[in-house]
Amino acid sequence: MSHYPQAIEHLIKWFSFLPGVGYKSAERMVMKLLEMSQDDIDQFSKAMVELKRLIRHCSLCNSITDKDICDICTAPNRDGSVLCVVETSKDMFAIERGNAFRGTYCVLGGKLSPLNGIGPAQLAFDKLEQLVRSRPVEEVILATGSDVEGDATAVYANQLLSPTGIKITRIAYGVPVGSSLDFADEMTILRAMEGRNEY
Amino acid sequence: MSHYPQAIEHLIKWFSFLPGVGYKSAERMVMKLLEMSQDDIDQFSKAMVELKRLIRHCSLCNSITDKDICDICTAPNRDGSVLCVVETSKDMFAIERGNAFRGTYCVLGGKLSPLNGIGPAQLAFDKLEQLVRSRPVEEVILATGSDVEGDATAVYANQLLSPTGIKITRIAYGVPVGSSLDFADEMTILRAMEGRNEY
Repeated sequence: MSHYPQAIEHLIKWFSFLPGVGYKSAERMVMKLLEMSQDDIDQFSKAMVELKRLIRHCSLCNSITDKDICDICTAPNRDGSVLCVVETSKDMFAIERGNAFRGTYCVLGGKLSPLNGIGPAQLAFDKLEQLVRSRPVEEVILATGSDVEGDATAVYANQLLSPTGIKITRIAYGVPVGSSLDFADEMTILRAMEGRNEY
Repeated sequence: MSHYPQAIEHLIKWFSFLPGVGYKSAERMVMKLLEMSQDDIDQFSKAMVELKRLIRHCSLCNSITDKDICDICTAPNRDGSVLCVVETSKDMFAIERGNAFRGTYCVLGGKLSPLNGIGPAQLAFDKLEQLVRSRPVEEVILATGSDVEGDATAVYANQLLSPTGIKITRIAYGVPVGSSLDFADEMTILRAMEGRNEY
């Protein structure tokens, strides 16, 4: 039995480290690279190498940015009275794509997960407290995930902020728009029932 | 609406060029890279940059290799009397993983596809003729795909080699092992019926 040349096996191994990529997908990716021009590959790899040099965390809201303070924190037209707390920068940009929110964010950088050694000290709760002090915040929206860890993180943030007297809300969890009820799992239906509004 | 910093959008674009990778998957890959150490990223990108420098085509069988002549062509224990014709190196390594074939290969580098400008001159039929002349070949196994182009490629190879009087065979197409008949499409069942053997 013959294997791929070492240079190919080596690169397949690297691609397999990426999320959602198994051996077969990584193999196809390397074959695609072999078809690309050396110039394109050089540009691709340069973008990879420079990624971490160019990207840092916003010193105010902790989101990923290429500046010291991110575009949202410096934008004059964002509403500083509403602060949305999310787990990751990816969640923040997902909300931004929705185009429905004009407030500012605080990115915690994860969710409470004691089993994985992630306690409050590992998350950006210090930044959250700073933001609440430094901005005229009237409402904090907790937009952490709906899993156990996301819920625990929301509970912790609520306890942390309740002495300030600021209004604290949590985004609605329920049946996704455009989806059928019979595709929803029991927990989603439970949350949709609990979160029902007057019609 | 705020977007990812340019360095991230740029890299998401590059990852999206890979087969089977859309925006969402590319986004997750870049987030994973942000979590990796700079040292790991440097090694990953170095493996990418060096890929095409290290990999060439075997001057005998046309498969991808890191030597002038590939491991299979130089192996003393391979049976030079059986030659298996495949479309791509990936097909060759798939057969190798099966561990059922001890002969040698000829990699055509694609399949006949006039609509995409791929005629016989674009494929390694010259290498196939050379191999048949230079080795004591007694059987040529045509292992091209079962689609229209793969069939056409097999027909062409058969016409090319028939003057030599060498035995030419085609691999069996039929119902995959471990799969149920009702999952097979009509063409597969047709080929399985046509290719039936005495029991």
